[in-house]
Amino acid sequence: MLKIPPHQVAGHKAGNGKLGPLVDESGRFYKPLQGDERGSNELKFYTSFSSDSRIPEHISKFFPTFFGTQLIEASDGSGLKPHLVLEDLSVGRDNPSIVDIKMGSRTWAPEASEEYIQKCLKKDRETSSLPLGFRLSGIQIYGNKESGYWKPERTSVQNLPAEEVKLILKRFVSSNTSTDMDMQPDCAFAATVYGGSTGILSQLLEMKAWFEDQTMYHFYSCSILIMFEKGLALEGQNPGGQIKLIDFAHVIEGRGVIDHNFLGGLCSLIKFISEILTAPSEHKSLVSSVNGVN
Amino acid sequence: MLKIPPHQVAGHKAGNGKLGPLVDESGRFYKPLQGDERGSNELKFYTSFSSDSRIPEHISKFFPTFFGTQLIEASDGSGLKPHLVLEDLSVGRDNPSIVDIKMGSRTWAPEASEEYIQKCLKKDRETSSLPLGFRLSGIQIYGNKESGYWKPERTSVQNLPAEEVKLILKRFVSSNTSTDMDMQPDCAFAATVYGGSTGILSQLLEMKAWFEDQTMYHFYSCSILIMFEKGLALEGQNPGGQIKLIDFAHVIEGRGVIDHNFLGGLCSLIKFISEILTAPSEHKSLVSSVNGVN
Repeated sequence: MLKIPPHQVAGHKAGNGKLGPLVDESGRFYKPLQGDERGSNELKFYTSFSSDSRIPEHISKFFPTFFGTQLIEASDGSGLKPHLVLEDLSVGRDNPSIVDIKMGSRTWAPEASEEYIQKCLKKDRETSSLPLGFRLSGIQIYGNKESGYWKPERTSVQNLPAEEVKLILKRFVSSNTSTDMDMQPDCAFAATVYGGSTGILSQLLEMKAWFEDQTMYHFYSCSILIMFEKGLALEGQNPGGQIKLIDFAHVIEGRGVIDHNFLGGLCSLIKFISEILTAPSEHKSLVSSVNGVN
Repeated sequence: MLKIPPHQVAGHKAGNGKLGPLVDESGRFYKPLQGDERGSNELKFYTSFSSDSRIPEHISKFFPTFFGTQLIEASDGSGLKPHLVLEDLSVGRDNPSIVDIKMGSRTWAPEASEEYIQKCLKKDRETSSLPLGFRLSGIQIYGNKESGYWKPERTSVQNLPAEEVKLILKRFVSSNTSTDMDMQPDCAFAATVYGGSTGILSQLLEMKAWFEDQTMYHFYSCSILIMFEKGLALEGQNPGGQIKLIDFAHVIEGRGVIDHNFLGGLCSLIKFISEILTAPSEHKSLVSSVNGVN
């Protein structure tokens, strides 16, 4: 039985006659293959990457498992359409907190069409991408059973200045997230989610080491998903903090050069997370412009 | 007695009635203060940076010493003009091999004028900046007393693909550089110039560690100079390999974010140098498009 993914925070969404991804009960995620070259490019990437013996296991774990393609009934009612069959990343998570971070100060590849380059460049300049090297592309933060999720409009988090982005990344690991948005985030779970030998920061550093070396792929317009289960954190258990790379429609060959655009953004994100771990209570701006979006 | 710097490889040059930098015999370098905001911005940077107690000594050594400003006779005969007074980086070097590498895939700051952004963006896309994260901006490689220097046209080295850039960075540390440009570079001095605990790679890694952390400045359109003395290398002595950062007319405040644009390019350059050290004889292209520029 296919259904709309309950925890999607960015990208095209199914429902109301729209084309979007679907999930089933066996833990698979069906992403409609975009009809243009984005679809063929993403399929090419998954096919190549999933059979590439140069990718070590400690890196391939950051990517969704790929199960090929399948014709299934599209979510918009347009009949059988080809879908990428991927691992459903939210499986086993009851109430995941998720942030989707689009990486790189530049989201366009040098060989893209002029029209596409101008469109992306405009958006990169209007959002946090240019100043920060990444932009928040979507987020949901679980509060508790009563309050549910804080899920601001995607457009309201894309173009925030550094201090606001840091505030959101603090809220992401705070216990007072969704009910008291005017309060300073307490960063109650910073150490257990971001810190530790298997936490988010360690995973980002593992990914960084690979990006400093790999010259096979340039990951334009990819996102890093950061996920964890606040319910477990509240119970004092390991919250299962995990990062995954998604969205490979604009990956190109690296041709012997590292992906300095992705890597620069990754180093910037790492700096934000490190600072939150080092000084969780430091803050410069008390009032956030996204407070009212609840 | 002021004279034209003998070893300038990039930037505006004095001579033939043109305005450019001058040097004196006491080891000072006089750079004309550009009349527009580039001049005031570079002066502002040197003034701020040279008195900034947050800059550790192992980092400030990568920057030219700043001695203030001085009115001197301009090289174009236009009379007394204000100049930045800096350390002459070529002092004590008889026959330096020098490469000027303009850093970053983006040479424009977000707040630059639209006209300036479009001009830089065009050049970044036409040169190696976009694919590599840096571009060669000028180079001179010393051969020996008879052959002198190999000094290709600056425009011929700015837009080379990765393999050609690697070839030039190999030539830079080879003994067969200027007389036999069709030969494969032997990388005879790779280990002594690029390698070792005080070599170029170690210095670049020291700089990288700072860039992963510092959020004070963003260094748009700066160059890294790499210099060494081949004469000393030929005699089996320490060739004095050294990196310096120059050209700060487009530095802006970091506002709490790392300079991911510079850092990405720096990581890319580090990868090139590392690969030359690891596999000096590996090459893919035998004939270089800049061979004929001698």
